[in-house]
Amino acid sequence: MSTKGSNGSPGSTGTWLTYRPEIKVLDCTIRDGGLMNNHRFDDAVVRGVYETCVAAGVDYMEIGYKNSKQQFSRDKFGPWKFCDEEDLRRIVGDNKTDLKLSIMADVGKCDYETDIAPKKDSVIDLVRVAAYIHQIPSAVEMIQDAHEKGYEVTANLMAVSTVHESDLAEGLQVLAGTPVSAIYLVDSFGSFYSEEIRALTKKYLDACKGTDIQVGIHTHNNQQLAYANTIEAIVSGANRLDATLSGLGRGAGNCPLELLIGFLKNPRYKLRPTLDCIERHIEPLRRNMHWGFDLSYMITGLMNQHPRAAMAYLDKAAADRESIVEFYDSAIEQV
Amino acid sequence: MSTKGSNGSPGSTGTWLTYRPEIKVLDCTIRDGGLMNNHRFDDAVVRGVYETCVAAGVDYMEIGYKNSKQQFSRDKFGPWKFCDEEDLRRIVGDNKTDLKLSIMADVGKCDYETDIAPKKDSVIDLVRVAAYIHQIPSAVEMIQDAHEKGYEVTANLMAVSTVHESDLAEGLQVLAGTPVSAIYLVDSFGSFYSEEIRALTKKYLDACKGTDIQVGIHTHNNQQLAYANTIEAIVSGANRLDATLSGLGRGAGNCPLELLIGFLKNPRYKLRPTLDCIERHIEPLRRNMHWGFDLSYMITGLMNQHPRAAMAYLDKAAADRESIVEFYDSAIEQV
Repeated sequence: MSTKGSNGSPGSTGTWLTYRPEIKVLDCTIRDGGLMNNHRFDDAVVRGVYETCVAAGVDYMEIGYKNSKQQFSRDKFGPWKFCDEEDLRRIVGDNKTDLKLSIMADVGKCDYETDIAPKKDSVIDLVRVAAYIHQIPSAVEMIQDAHEKGYEVTANLMAVSTVHESDLAEGLQVLAGTPVSAIYLVDSFGSFYSEEIRALTKKYLDACKGTDIQVGIHTHNNQQLAYANTIEAIVSGANRLDATLSGLGRGAGNCPLELLIGFLKNPRYKLRPTLDCIERHIEPLRRNMHWGFDLSYMITGLMNQHPRAAMAYLDKAAADRESIVEFYDSAIEQV
Repeated sequence: MSTKGSNGSPGSTGTWLTYRPEIKVLDCTIRDGGLMNNHRFDDAVVRGVYETCVAAGVDYMEIGYKNSKQQFSRDKFGPWKFCDEEDLRRIVGDNKTDLKLSIMADVGKCDYETDIAPKKDSVIDLVRVAAYIHQIPSAVEMIQDAHEKGYEVTANLMAVSTVHESDLAEGLQVLAGTPVSAIYLVDSFGSFYSEEIRALTKKYLDACKGTDIQVGIHTHNNQQLAYANTIEAIVSGANRLDATLSGLGRGAGNCPLELLIGFLKNPRYKLRPTLDCIERHIEPLRRNMHWGFDLSYMITGLMNQHPRAAMAYLDKAAADRESIVEFYDSAIEQV
């Protein structure tokens, strides 16, 4: 196995052949990928991903959202939008493995008081609270609730590329005062370049100084930089890494887990099981799901826009689509 | 248009909104892409790429190889393996544009004494001499020949990821003593990470210190890092950049020109014409040509191997292919 590539202990040198044991990998294939199929996956796929995460030594698997059944219909959405305990246990049993399980809880879309059970009654280990900058006060309440129920909790601050720098500094300061174990830098629109990831990771690390809070990274591949920016964050000191098999995720997708495992040198991570799962369970999904890089995502990423315009464009049958130049012309008009 | 992203003047700060005028972009869509179809492109495609390069403000277009007709049959290979003057002029006429034209001449595969005409008789501006490390003495002779014939000449040192560091230092020293305008860092196997690109770009720049020679970068996308590593080289000081439309190129392909233009801030570069060309001329080629990221290329990239095993694997009909795990097992056996 090639031993090239550093795991970038910040400030250290000669680390090509070493690894940073603090690094933890979270697979969010089913959670982020669920945004492309209304969270309807065959159990065989979810179980395949689960077993692969166990075999590959992945630290966490995020299996879905904990979204409100008041707001979202079970007719329209599959089980991984709600992550009921019985659905979870149908896949993972009591999860007697080293793999920890995670759910994402969106501020404003989660009836967390009632829907998130005490940790002792759940197979879930980690609750990741996802919020936009203006939702930080609500996020703090959700974090507190999940913490008091006994979970590990993290904060995912979304769409940071649209946040004013002064607001971000204030938001990070607030989050650093909560009982989270990590705060994630989230490139929701896939618009950051490596130098920005470096500067932001440092900003997040600075905000967490004096606490035990780790910095995490979650990227999208609109500009084919999801993996590269994840490496950049690692080298800059991020220790919590999101990735998905084959990059499956909303729009242009995420950092591919198999590439990330190829980069990491910790012997606990195994590449081989991911390859088998991708071939068997993930690539066949392309028959009905369309994720990954496309020029339309590149354009929304460049323009620092939500990918929804690109997703709508790609949802049309190819014959009904405007030309990519027309899409570009309308995208640059919007700002 | 978003103005995020630096063009990375090394050592300077606050350059998000500026650009480095020394940067020159070379499109090698037809040259590198020709490795995937034996250099057979319809004239309409070659003309489309040419007109797009002119419209997009690209500095150079590399239209093909100057390969030996003694060694390679015109029956088996299309015109862009040989780049006869009449073929060139059928596309570009006398090329009364600002776009410069380039050919690649491989050491050991080019009858350069006879086949490369004096500059005054050719529409070509730049001869790029491509060599492996052990071919440097022959490369020096070819460089001298093309220089004396009146061309701009560059050196592309291939497969650097397999070269011993001491040999590389010596090779660069030799090349820095020739009349080349640039020496290219070439990641033939798509195996470098950003930290390696940074270190190597600095090594190339050091070797060129005290000369007018620029450093160039040519990447492959085996690990989805072709674009990211090109940015890394820019930030580290490389000024000569290779890219191709839609990343069309051997195996996993190259740095996509459209992404690169999105990053560069020099107003001479235009994104819009590249989108039209990709939709009209490049993407339709996928019906018969298969380039771009694949797990098999990721594996050869990780192992620092030539992609030929992956290309052979992908050439088989899907039903006849071994599983990707079997491919992986045989790839890691080879070292």
